[in-house]
Amino acid sequence: MKKKLVNNPDHVVEEMVEGIVLAAPDKLTKIEGYNVVVRKDSPNEKVALVSGGGSGHEPTHAGFVGEGMLDGAIAGDVFTSPTPDAVFEAIKAVDGGKGVLLVVKNYTGDVMNFEMAAEMAEAEGIEVDHVVVDDDVAVEDSLYTTGRRGVAGTIFVHKIAGAKAEAGADLAEVKEVAEKVIENVKTKGMALYPCRVPSADESTFTLDEDEIELGIGIHGEPGTERTEIMKADDIVDELLGSVIEDIPYQSGDDVALMINGMGGTPLMELFVANRRANQILEEKGINIYKTFVGEYMTSLEMAGLSITLLKLDDEMKELLDAPTEINIMK
Amino acid sequence: MKKKLVNNPDHVVEEMVEGIVLAAPDKLTKIEGYNVVVRKDSPNEKVALVSGGGSGHEPTHAGFVGEGMLDGAIAGDVFTSPTPDAVFEAIKAVDGGKGVLLVVKNYTGDVMNFEMAAEMAEAEGIEVDHVVVDDDVAVEDSLYTTGRRGVAGTIFVHKIAGAKAEAGADLAEVKEVAEKVIENVKTKGMALYPCRVPSADESTFTLDEDEIELGIGIHGEPGTERTEIMKADDIVDELLGSVIEDIPYQSGDDVALMINGMGGTPLMELFVANRRANQILEEKGINIYKTFVGEYMTSLEMAGLSITLLKLDDEMKELLDAPTEINIMK
Repeated sequence: MKKKLVNNPDHVVEEMVEGIVLAAPDKLTKIEGYNVVVRKDSPNEKVALVSGGGSGHEPTHAGFVGEGMLDGAIAGDVFTSPTPDAVFEAIKAVDGGKGVLLVVKNYTGDVMNFEMAAEMAEAEGIEVDHVVVDDDVAVEDSLYTTGRRGVAGTIFVHKIAGAKAEAGADLAEVKEVAEKVIENVKTKGMALYPCRVPSADESTFTLDEDEIELGIGIHGEPGTERTEIMKADDIVDELLGSVIEDIPYQSGDDVALMINGMGGTPLMELFVANRRANQILEEKGINIYKTFVGEYMTSLEMAGLSITLLKLDDEMKELLDAPTEINIMK
Repeated sequence: MKKKLVNNPDHVVEEMVEGIVLAAPDKLTKIEGYNVVVRKDSPNEKVALVSGGGSGHEPTHAGFVGEGMLDGAIAGDVFTSPTPDAVFEAIKAVDGGKGVLLVVKNYTGDVMNFEMAAEMAEAEGIEVDHVVVDDDVAVEDSLYTTGRRGVAGTIFVHKIAGAKAEAGADLAEVKEVAEKVIENVKTKGMALYPCRVPSADESTFTLDEDEIELGIGIHGEPGTERTEIMKADDIVDELLGSVIEDIPYQSGDDVALMINGMGGTPLMELFVANRRANQILEEKGINIYKTFVGEYMTSLEMAGLSITLLKLDDEMKELLDAPTEINIMK
């Protein structure tokens, strides 16, 4: 995959951020000089929610900036942690005096840079706390992490903590519900084909024409297993099986289900996977409260999918259902 | 692209339709024995809207079945017109006595089979009419059409005619506004990489590693021009230039803009394209009333995009903004 719709790879993130803001000019704005998207009506009289990370995972994170979810999102270079000063700018822009919660995916660089930004903000008297999402059950440690990686489950943290903040909770309460989501959300992904970052000549990894990788990350980090291509149902069995046994999710549980496309996967294939996921969950007596099928946490044009389960209690159900202007989370 | 998340290519459409319905079980249902998705609350006390066509263009059409848009959608085999009997079943299922409007994309097989189904329904006393969408400015006639092809502009017909029907208009009025959208909507697309249908070994067409195709259809039909890969901005200039000069769209016009991904295109690239489209339209004094960026009318995992403009009057603006439960059209 050599051809891309870009101008200059060095400017692709900035041009993308401009394009995001231009798609919703009444709601979003870009902080001058930084690849940071914030709500146009920031700051609000509520706890502010900020997330971010390397680019290439769109719509994550800027696509979740809006009422009921994030107040700001920082876009690092492709697959590269955002700088502490960009995160700091986002915090300053959205803080309305009630404090700011940072939602960080568990990658060493992200955690370090968000923590550094938090210290910078605290030195200016802004109350800041953070949570680290580590929902990927595939690996315990990886190329870029100590502990598990943060992947598609992050979207549920944005939604539920965002709704809690919108409802007027204080920073400790918003953090508490974010931590509850993190404890109850698990994901596993796989790839059929790799992606290529705009500045590189080669794909982030290679797979033979009859080979797939299970347990893959969202930057092409190695997964748990390379195997021959299998039927869609068998792949779903593998992924969802690993997810279910992790907490474990049990008969009688109510869950949110996310079938997440990695960027280059036809929707047709995601719906075929959703069919099988429903069969498995029904067999196990696990009740699907709400289903999300689409692209949420991508890896450029990587072909493949991830499956996420979030075990819900009454509070999380109410917050998941709370209004948001982010269409794909309605 | 040989690897796919499918079980058996012969059952992929049926399994997909099951997966679509399972993702929204409170709102959608499948007609037993047919790959037809209808609203669970059909029939309604209003004109019903039905569309359909070959599969492989998801979320089109089943993804647009819901309050404020379609009442039913027929999924043919991949890139294959649905059979008249499947269309007939859809018509019968959604008709609530106020008549049914069929929205047909201009492909010879689709037009023929939808017209045949309309005759079958009329023979049973159901009032049926149809419109044919032909928004693709790239070619006048093509492999599968007499006249222009129907592509992404079809989504605006679904939205605006759907809102008109929901508002209680009669069949002639719903048809009239659908025709008005068709007169005012134009699209042009391009491909970086082809797609492959699940039952085939080979891609639907081939492109060299430094080659793109402009004016392509949504089934890999030949476009207007093969050229070397260009910068994203130059590609947008080409596509939007052809669209703008077609009606032509003029300074002072209000338009809806759709940047549509073909299935395998990272959102990052669509937003880079949106940035350039905004620049061009601003230079020309054409006012963007509403922007849609994402996957609406895909071609499996084809990489590329299309750009659609719809010239709006007050009635179309109001209907475009009318409530719908289809999230990506809000």
